[in-house]
Parts: sequence; C-alpha cells; structure tokens
Amino acid sequence: MHHPQAASRSDAAHGASKLLARLRARSPRVHCITNAVAQNFTANVLLAVGCIPSMTLSAEEIGSFVAGAEALLVNLGTFDAERRQATAIAVEAAAANDTPWVLDPVFVDRAPPRATFALELIARRPAVVRLNHAEFATLSDSAPSRDSALSYARTSRTVVAVSGGTDLVTDGERVVAVSNGHPLMARITAMGCAGSALVAACLAVEADALRAATAALAIIGVAGEAAAEKSNGPGSLAVAILDTLHNLDASTLIARARIG
Amino acid sequence: MHHPQAASRSDAAHGASKLLARLRARSPRVHCITNAVAQNFTANVLLAVGCIPSMTLSAEEIGSFVAGAEALLVNLGTFDAERRQATAIAVEAAAANDTPWVLDPVFVDRAPPRATFALELIARRPAVVRLNHAEFATLSDSAPSRDSALSYARTSRTVVAVSGGTDLVTDGERVVAVSNGHPLMARITAMGCAGSALVAACLAVEADALRAATAALAIIGVAGEAAAEKSNGPGSLAVAILDTLHNLDASTLIARARIG
Amino acid sequence: MHHPQAASRSDAAHGASKLLARLRARSPRVHCITNAVAQNFTANVLLAVGCIPSMTLSAEEIGSFVAGAEALLVNLGTFDAERRQATAIAVEAAAANDTPWVLDPVFVDRAPPRATFALELIARRPAVVRLNHAEFATLSDSAPSRDSALSYARTSRTVVAVSGGTDLVTDGERVVAVSNGHPLMARITAMGCAGSALVAACLAVEADALRAATAALAIIGVAGEAAAEKSNGPGSLAVAILDTLHNLDASTLIARARIG
Repeated sequence: MHHPQAASRSDAAHGASKLLARLRARSPRVHCITNAVAQNFTANVLLAVGCIPSMTLSAEEIGSFVAGAEALLVNLGTFDAERRQATAIAVEAAAANDTPWVLDPVFVDRAPPRATFALELIARRPAVVRLNHAEFATLSDSAPSRDSALSYARTSRTVVAVSGGTDLVTDGERVVAVSNGHPLMARITAMGCAGSALVAACLAVEADALRAATAALAIIGVAGEAAAEKSNGPGSLAVAILDTLHNLDASTLIARARIG
Repeated sequence: MHHPQAASRSDAAHGASKLLARLRARSPRVHCITNAVAQNFTANVLLAVGCIPSMTLSAEEIGSFVAGAEALLVNLGTFDAERRQATAIAVEAAAANDTPWVLDPVFVDRAPPRATFALELIARRPAVVRLNHAEFATLSDSAPSRDSALSYARTSRTVVAVSGGTDLVTDGERVVAVSNGHPLMARITAMGCAGSALVAACLAVEADALRAATAALAIIGVAGEAAAEKSNGPGSLAVAILDTLHNLDASTLIARARIG
Repeated sequence: MHHPQAASRSDAAHGASKLLARLRARSPRVHCITNAVAQNFTANVLLAVGCIPSMTLSAEEIGSFVAGAEALLVNLGTFDAERRQATAIAVEAAAANDTPWVLDPVFVDRAPPRATFALELIARRPAVVRLNHAEFATLSDSAPSRDSALSYARTSRTVVAVSGGTDLVTDGERVVAVSNGHPLMARITAMGCAGSALVAACLAVEADALRAATAALAIIGVAGEAAAEKSNGPGSLAVAILDTLHNLDASTLIARARIG
C-alpha cells in the first residue's frame, strides 16, 4: 500500500531536520531590523540554533552589516523613523547582494501608516512575508484562507506564511500546513518575531523559500511543544524554548513535526 | 464580635481577585511608553495576566495605538526626545478617549529636566502616579509619609502610589497600605516598571483608580512572594514571577494579600 | 618549598573575592551606554552583584547620570547618532569627575565608521578597553597575542582585556590570564556586554584597573562555569548566571578562579 501524503510529510520533516543541521554547521550571519521589545529574545533564539545575529539600525552602518549577512529580517514592531530609514538601506543592500529577506508586518492592522509602508516593502520582493490573520486581512484585503493566501502569494510573487493554530505556507503554487506549536507560546512577547527571524535564518541555508519557511515554523513549533511539557508557565517556557532549540535532535524533530 | 478592619482587608483581597479575573476575561489592550530596559519584561508581565501589550513610540503611530487601547503607561526611564514627543501625543489621545493612564516618573530624583517634565505631566491628570520614596520627595518637595502622600494626592487630584517596604496608595481621601512583595524583587531590573504597567492594566477594568492601583500592587507583590519560595536568586525569580502571574488563583491571592 | 606563581594566583583570586564583597557593600552606581539588545541582561547582571545600573541615553540627562555614577560603560553595539552624542557627553562628564570608564568596541571589525569612532574614544583614555580577537585585530592592526596586547596597552596607555578561550588582561607592563568561563556562554546574547559592565562596576571599587578587570572577568567566568553545571542549555544558563552571581561566595570564587 502507498501513502503519498505520509511520505511527503516525512520528507518535509526530514528536510527540516537537515536544514537545522546546516544552520548549526554553517552559523550564518542574520541581520535583524526588529523592535526593541523583541531584540534580546530574537538574538537568543538565533544563537540557540547556531546563527550569528546582528541588530544595528544605524544608517551609517547597516549597509555593511547586511552586505556581510546571509539573511535579513525586517520586523515592523515599534516602527519609527530610524527603522524606516534603516529598512530602506537594508533592503537595497539585500537586493544588491542577492540576500534573502523576510518581512514581518507586525500590527499593520492597528496603524495605517505602517500598512502603507508594508505594501511598499512587499513590492520590493521579500523572499517570505510572515504574518498573522489580522495582518493578512489588512494587507491582502481578503479574509484569511487557503485560497486567499495562494492568490496573494501568486500576485505578490513571494512566499506567504500565515500563522495561526495551523500555519499556512504558500508560494502561490504549493501550499503546506504546519500544525506545531503550543497555546502558551502566545503569552510570550516576541515569540512570533523570533519565529520570523528563524525563517530568515533558514533562508540563509536553503534556496527554496517555501521549504525554508516550512522548516523554520516546524522547528520553532516543535521546540515550543517539547518545552511546554517541562514548563510551569510563560516565563519558564521562554527559557525552555531556548534550551530545546539548542538541544533539538533530528529524531525528536522528525517525530513531532506535523507538516502536511 | 465585629472586626471591621479584617473585613475590609478581606474585601480588598476579594476585589483584587475579581479584578485579576476580569483582566483574564477581557484581555485589555495596554499601550506602554517605557524604557528599552523594561520593554520586554513589561510586555511579558502584561501577557502573563492576559493583557495585550503594545509598545510603539513612533509619533506617526502612537495616536492610533492609544486610541485603540484601554489604558496607557507613561514611564520616564531612559527618557529621550522620541519618548517625550510620543508622550505628548499619547496623553492627548488618552484625554480625547477618556483612557486612564499611569505615570511612573523613574529617576526624577537624578535628572532635573525629567522632574520638570514629570510635573507638567501630573498637571495633565494621570489616573495614578506610581513612584518610590526618592521620586516622591523630589516631586512633592516633602518627605514621604502617610500625610504628605494624602496631601500630594489631594493637591494633584490623582491617585498616588508610593512604593516601598509597604506601598501606600491614596486618592487624597482614602489611604490603603499594601504590604506584599519580597526584597529580592529589587534585584530584578524593570520590576517596578512592570508593576506600574499592571496598574495601568487594572485601570482598564476598574474605574475606581484607588482600587485598581491597590489590586495591581497586591497581585505583583503576592506573585513575587510566592515565586521567591521556588527561586534560587534574581534570575529564576523573574522567570517564576511570570509563571506565577499566569497561574495565580483566587484562593492564593486572597490568602496572601496584605491590604489594610 | 615556595610556589610564587601559585601564591600569586591565590592572591589574585582572593583579590577578586574582596572586590566582589566591596561591590555588595557599596552598591556603586554604574551608568551604561549600551545596545538595546544588551540593556536588560546587563542591568540584571549589575543588580545581581549589588550595583545600581542606569541606562539613559538622552543628551539632556546623561551628564547628570554620569556625574552621579561611580563608573561608566560605553558599548558600541547597535551604534547610532543618539548613542554617539550620548557618548561624547558622557566621556566628558567622566573626565570632569575622574570617573573610570570601560570601552567595549563591539563589532568594529564589521563596520568601518564604528572603528574610527572607537579609535577616537581610545584616545580619550578609557580605564579599560575590553574586546575580542577580531575587534583587537581591527583596532590594533596586529594579530592578537600576548606581545601585541602588551604593546597596544602601552601605546594606548590603557588596560586592554582581550577575551577568548583565555582572557588576557594587560596594562602594558603586567599581563594576567584569566581562564574561566564556559563555551555555552557564547550562545547567550549580551554575555560579553554584561561582562564589560561588570568590569566598569569593579573599577568603581578598585583603583588598579588591571586588578579590577581581572576580578570582573574571573567573577563572570566562574559564575558561568558554576551555572553551566545546573543548566540544560543557553536559556537556563542565562537565568542561572544571574542566580549564581547573586549567591557567589568567597570560597567558590577562590577555589574556581584560574588567574595566572
């Protein structure tokens, strides 16, 4: 008997595991434009999987940092003039160096100027746009669904990763669902931001952006689930996620990943 | 036999417990202007009790965020031009929307320009001013005591919460003492800032500012005490406080709260 | 039989232990200009050893804060216009008040404008420059070694602390090696920055900058080693380091310190 879907799930889980091994072996540099709330946890998540994060926002410096990095994250949380200017320079440097980048349009649903800026950025072709349901609805002007995500990815010519109870990842042709994670993760600030940084990290070692995003979401989700089993609340969960990411082995990741 | 004071203590503790239940049920949005040191821990404290924190400082955006929030925190730690401008816009938006706000005038005793700014803000009528002894002495020009706090609250027409071994909360008529907390809490950065954010959160679900402030200080103090029993130092205490806030049940809060 | 080196090692360890006791007894104020990623952990490390940290960057305020502080840290991570201006004012205030300061020239190897700024700062005579191999190579234009560190310290008339598997500390005459620490410490963001803040703290209670730097590196290294024995990964290690710094006793520090 043949189970194509089970085979494909297992392939994707093995792919995520190989990708994690590559992160640890290559230690890519990942530059992050992110909000002050998220910087520390994001850096620690990247370090826990073996990457080298940098976070400067200075207009004078960010060009050099992005040119020397293998991936870039642009997160719009706590967005200000300095970060807007930094983003313009960083995205240009990324284009010049063919460096893949991720856009995380945090809270575009709550601040209209931020939504305008996000739409301009999407036109600059990030490899992946990672966002939640409310943010997707604001930017795509459509209710979040498998079909609207597919259509938005096709139109925008980018991979779209819509996070929720189940994450949907699509490049406009393929659609993958990732069903890992734990509800308590939503009670830790910067968890989503750090997940998007991990998507950027995976892009540094995997040219197929759909696979990179899928692997990143499975890795952080599996780490969250495994960590939740040893935690007493959101404080110990955040600590345990860093430990788990550092120690995550291939067999645990493959056994737990729910990619379909 | 009648014990009016014991009854009142127990009433206040029950009130705090009901207020915590309302926070979890309603998940109010709380916007925080706070220092970069405190942003992450403050957001995690708010998330641990069920709130939705936001932290942007951008002049373009903060008006929308405050208009959509149910309470506002203005914390003067690491105060700069961006935060000053953000505060002006945020306080105006709060006034326009009748949104209650808390002022935490961090370190006004160490920076004269900050004290001037704090006095201007107090004239804009925050619902609560939360501050320590040195900060109270600087702003009120009087030694901290039950009487000077009463007098300052009456003159400023705001609730004043002076934190210390015992916290004093007064609206100029009533005075309440909260005697919870643990000495090791002073060895964790942003603990006071996060406490003030919790005061803001409680204002979102309780119109009586004295009750809101009292409840918030009892909740964070009880969480600190209970967490200290399971901690080995300030690092594990910070983690355990987040866990404890998330798990705090009515009976523990009522049994431990020392409000009189 | 006489063991001069063993005696000197033990002297240095006892010196570090006395210095830690002085930190706890005197609670010096330490002002930190540091990057947003590092602010929270740095403040918590300083609090864990009994210091009072402050972190404001505002041009209007930083002069008062530095004038009231017993030591200053200038860390160039995430360096921007605000921090550049803050540094100019802070270094002047430090000079006017004879306040010792530490320069941590983070990532000068990756951003040429930052290297230029660092060289200007070194000419202003920090008490200690703390940096890693790549940063040392960039600033001194020489490969890191015992001899190049000695020579660079002599020329710059400052104490140079080059961190690595073994830390080298030299004032251009004396050279001390500190061989404490744990590899997992490199997987926690801001660990090096916090170590430099501890060097600043030690300068507040010890006039001999070589001894202050040596003690600080031994203290953080011993805390890291001891904490690693109780940790499961980088998340729990960061928490345990704060606990260990708070609880570190003289006998543990003396037994574990490897200063030679």
